[in-house]
Amino acid sequence: MPDRLPHTLRSDARDNRERILSVARTTFAAAGLDVPMREIARRADVGPATLYRRFPTKEALVTEAFADQMAACTAAVDEGLADPDPWHGFRDMIEKVFALHAVDRGFTAAFISTFPHAIDFTETRDRALRSVAELARRAKAAGKLRPDFVIDDLILVLMANSGIRASSPAAALAASRRLAALLLQGLSAEPATPVP
Amino acid sequence: MPDRLPHTLRSDARDNRERILSVARTTFAAAGLDVPMREIARRADVGPATLYRRFPTKEALVTEAFADQMAACTAAVDEGLADPDPWHGFRDMIEKVFALHAVDRGFTAAFISTFPHAIDFTETRDRALRSVAELARRAKAAGKLRPDFVIDDLILVLMANSGIRASSPAAALAASRRLAALLLQGLSAEPATPVP
Repeated sequence: MPDRLPHTLRSDARDNRERILSVARTTFAAAGLDVPMREIARRADVGPATLYRRFPTKEALVTEAFADQMAACTAAVDEGLADPDPWHGFRDMIEKVFALHAVDRGFTAAFISTFPHAIDFTETRDRALRSVAELARRAKAAGKLRPDFVIDDLILVLMANSGIRASSPAAALAASRRLAALLLQGLSAEPATPVP
Repeated sequence: MPDRLPHTLRSDARDNRERILSVARTTFAAAGLDVPMREIARRADVGPATLYRRFPTKEALVTEAFADQMAACTAAVDEGLADPDPWHGFRDMIEKVFALHAVDRGFTAAFISTFPHAIDFTETRDRALRSVAELARRAKAAGKLRPDFVIDDLILVLMANSGIRASSPAAALAASRRLAALLLQGLSAEPATPVP
């Protein structure tokens, strides 16, 4: 279909697509994922028909909007797994993932949501969570990660990170780094006081 | 003025006031403090004139809406200060304050905001923060709280707590308790790794 369109129209279509994705990221970050598709279309200055032609469902839009962040998140987890020191790998992974989420609250909202119809997104996310679980298993075996860590704790600390409000992305990153350090110290096996 | 109104009207006026405050709490919790006064009036089913007659500014509305929570928060800090063991008092205070905020995200938004014109609210909040600083000083002197704790860390952990999303108040409380425990372990002087 795009091959039959004149050059300028194809270029317009590409511009539309980029504008929709950019508007979606900004809007999801500010207002969560509940924003209606029509509102995304309005803010992106395209008709609802154009939006739905490109992204038939909100799941499709979310998946595309956060494809880069999801890839970076997966890479951070893979790098953690590849670290010969599992506790170092775990901490590194948390720091990288926190930094990713600190500057994009829309991505956090997408990551902690369940999208039964966003098959690619959910599969990639679940694969990343399984890798985190394996990394956690190794860090526990090394006696470094508290033994009662569960994978829900990852979601808990990501939610905590998403609560940060700051006046700039740099301030958000600084606050997120401090929070990551405090939480990693809390997750360390060393103090070993049971957590409710 | 109310003395000159017939009984039913006085009762209506009281109902209006309670409804406005209840709507304000729910709305601020769901959408933050940026919701316009007119939207609060619309949701409370009163005219803007009625809303402004009772609460001339948003600061006045926020102060009234969260008066009980602010009093409970101040009481939690005072109880912490009265504890003969400052680290126990500090932890107790954090747990109580987390629980208060876990079930009312609007209160967190109000607490971490700066309202130059909400004199009572801001004074009470700042007095509570000074008490937390004194409690922290004692807990550090006892060698229990990490020496690099600053009062901004209290705001940081409150923001973290406000990031929790849960399907019910009970689930939010449970998640908040776990987060408080992890963070308190991170704030303990024991592991003593410097935090960025």
